[in-house]
Amino acid sequence: MSDLRQKALDYHQFPVPGKTAVALTKAASTSLDLALAYSPGVAEPVREIAADAADAYRYTNKGNTVAVITNGTAILGLGNLGPLAAKPVMEGKALLFKRFANIDATDIEVKHRTNEDFINTVEAIADTFGGINLEDIKAPECFEIEQELIKRCNIPVFHDDQHGTAIVTAAGMLNALEIQGKQIAQAVFVCMGAGAAAVACMSLLVKCGALRENIYMLDRKGVIHTRRTDLNEYKSLFANNTDKRTLRDVIQGADVFLGVSGANVLSAEDIELMAERPIVFACSNPDPEIKPELAHAVRKDLIMGTGRSDYPNQVNNVLCFPFIFRGALDVRARRINDEMKLAAVHAIASLAREAVPAEVLAAYPDVSSLIFGPEYVLPKPMDPRLLPRVARAVAKAAIASGSAQVNELPVDYLL
Amino acid sequence: MSDLRQKALDYHQFPVPGKTAVALTKAASTSLDLALAYSPGVAEPVREIAADAADAYRYTNKGNTVAVITNGTAILGLGNLGPLAAKPVMEGKALLFKRFANIDATDIEVKHRTNEDFINTVEAIADTFGGINLEDIKAPECFEIEQELIKRCNIPVFHDDQHGTAIVTAAGMLNALEIQGKQIAQAVFVCMGAGAAAVACMSLLVKCGALRENIYMLDRKGVIHTRRTDLNEYKSLFANNTDKRTLRDVIQGADVFLGVSGANVLSAEDIELMAERPIVFACSNPDPEIKPELAHAVRKDLIMGTGRSDYPNQVNNVLCFPFIFRGALDVRARRINDEMKLAAVHAIASLAREAVPAEVLAAYPDVSSLIFGPEYVLPKPMDPRLLPRVARAVAKAAIASGSAQVNELPVDYLL
Repeated sequence: MSDLRQKALDYHQFPVPGKTAVALTKAASTSLDLALAYSPGVAEPVREIAADAADAYRYTNKGNTVAVITNGTAILGLGNLGPLAAKPVMEGKALLFKRFANIDATDIEVKHRTNEDFINTVEAIADTFGGINLEDIKAPECFEIEQELIKRCNIPVFHDDQHGTAIVTAAGMLNALEIQGKQIAQAVFVCMGAGAAAVACMSLLVKCGALRENIYMLDRKGVIHTRRTDLNEYKSLFANNTDKRTLRDVIQGADVFLGVSGANVLSAEDIELMAERPIVFACSNPDPEIKPELAHAVRKDLIMGTGRSDYPNQVNNVLCFPFIFRGALDVRARRINDEMKLAAVHAIASLAREAVPAEVLAAYPDVSSLIFGPEYVLPKPMDPRLLPRVARAVAKAAIASGSAQVNELPVDYLL
Repeated sequence: MSDLRQKALDYHQFPVPGKTAVALTKAASTSLDLALAYSPGVAEPVREIAADAADAYRYTNKGNTVAVITNGTAILGLGNLGPLAAKPVMEGKALLFKRFANIDATDIEVKHRTNEDFINTVEAIADTFGGINLEDIKAPECFEIEQELIKRCNIPVFHDDQHGTAIVTAAGMLNALEIQGKQIAQAVFVCMGAGAAAVACMSLLVKCGALRENIYMLDRKGVIHTRRTDLNEYKSLFANNTDKRTLRDVIQGADVFLGVSGANVLSAEDIELMAERPIVFACSNPDPEIKPELAHAVRKDLIMGTGRSDYPNQVNNVLCFPFIFRGALDVRARRINDEMKLAAVHAIASLAREAVPAEVLAAYPDVSSLIFGPEYVLPKPMDPRLLPRVARAVAKAAIASGSAQVNELPVDYLL
């Protein structure tokens, strides 16, 4: 770990600090170049955009740009360390946007005073960009912030900690349920954690067919049930009319455990109590709710996923966010709606069912299985098919659902 | 002009819209790369920055980043067309920052509601960047906005329309005065225009030795004098205790005319009335206050500058802003103070007195003179010596004046 620590610090520091820079997409050598790029030539696109705002997509980088914005109140699993400390994460996200989807992302760290103030700030700068990726904002504030910004902005606003996590989780879950021979409408879910990711995951699983009465969500005080009086409106959505109160009460006979709690809370005994052919997605990072070795030791019929790259079935947001934004930007979607999210879920899920190309095998020499099954329910981040498949599915859904402002699919997704 | 128009639009549109993109400065190919760039490795620089905010300069791009921010209220000479229409200009500025000083600049267009709201927005996002370049914000709001942001931010905030213009104007003016054999403390100045650039130019010339009683500033109502009751606090700084009321009144015997008015207002008769060996900087763009051909026809002893690249002595902000920020960033200056601005003035002025290298001659095959004299009082934008000379002078001044947080000059300016 100390080796990783030094490597990570060196990576960030040398040869230049940070991970992203600006590149020019146009010639800027001669006086003529500069006369076109700046004075006097630049007045021409200015006039065009003043006459028709949509021309900003024609003459500026707006249409390929995403702002990665945080207030630093929930950085990774590290907590509220303030906006500046979040900058390496936001730059990292920008790196991933570029690497996986050729999207030009800019990190913006915002001093947080009040929700309203944060919302006003983001709204005020939103026109600069083609989309906004909110990141590392704590619950429950993140819900109001995202909802309000979606209302106020006419570009996609997407809180990745909620929806990116939910989309990838749902994709893996649909595949795991199929492999285990379970129907989502009959499955009993235990969700450990009641923050942004938990609420988003369970909401999306409901849209995929899970029944609310089969969902038991737990926060620090135990099961979220209808007699509790301390619930915010987001937790209330999942208040179960039940007498069960503890993890031990609800894990008994459960088909699925989803851990997004940040704590090492699931014991081997808990796993033993689950239904036949159980599914455990223990997504807390870096320490999953239970170690895969321990879980598999007590249940041979288990499908297990984690947030880590060194175990099978990594639930990794990078499977989604670069591509859902790629699709949204390419048809100039006004927002990322449920239809687009579900399209992403199904595109990611179906990709895992196909044979992987040789280049993916080569990128993962140490991985035990890349064949659809208990150890491979989600595609790998380095799978180059993610970009065309997921982005195209999202763009099609945007067009079909009326969110797109350009009703043609781009022709240049790599196939 | 129609040819330039189409070329400028094509330049902005093809092969991709806009002028800037994001580039990665670190490897992002393998799983290990991504483990260092993002999860889990990114947690390490996060922890370091949370413990010591200055480490943001070590592990992120902050120290080489400038935000180019506008509200679109005074775009070029085109007026208040709103923030989105300003985006090509801000991207153009970002292109120039990169091209001339390898600074990574991001354009941010801000919806303007009130001054306070704009200031709050910029303050809220300021920590993201190493410096802030304000641009195309109308007067007099720009004065309050800049002053307040300088107070609230601990990074340099610089309104280029004011200070960039002033620094380059002052550099050219000092050289022109010397060539004409005039002392700045005796020279009589007429300044046509009383906006952001005019106030900043005359303020800086006062710091260079001009006497306030020798300055006649004019706005749309004529000479700004002490009996006027309609002056804002910025114009009041230049209220002259005089009975002169019109341009014709003050141009009589004046040594210097500075035009930053946006209007074609100076006649051949006016020029004839000026003192011997006069200086006219007619900087409005694209139409100078008087055409150089017309001015030279009536006064052979004239030194003339304009804002245009197709006449000698172009007063062009690009001679200053990339380099003043380069110097400020390199010693992590808290702000850009007067000492640094004056250092830039003198570095730019002295460069024009030296013989130009062959590569500058090659870049300007059509220019009549690149030898210090009436047709060459300012260096050319393509002069590669600007970067090391101006940036170094600014960095030294930052250290000497106590603005620097790093008290060592960088060793890697190209010399």
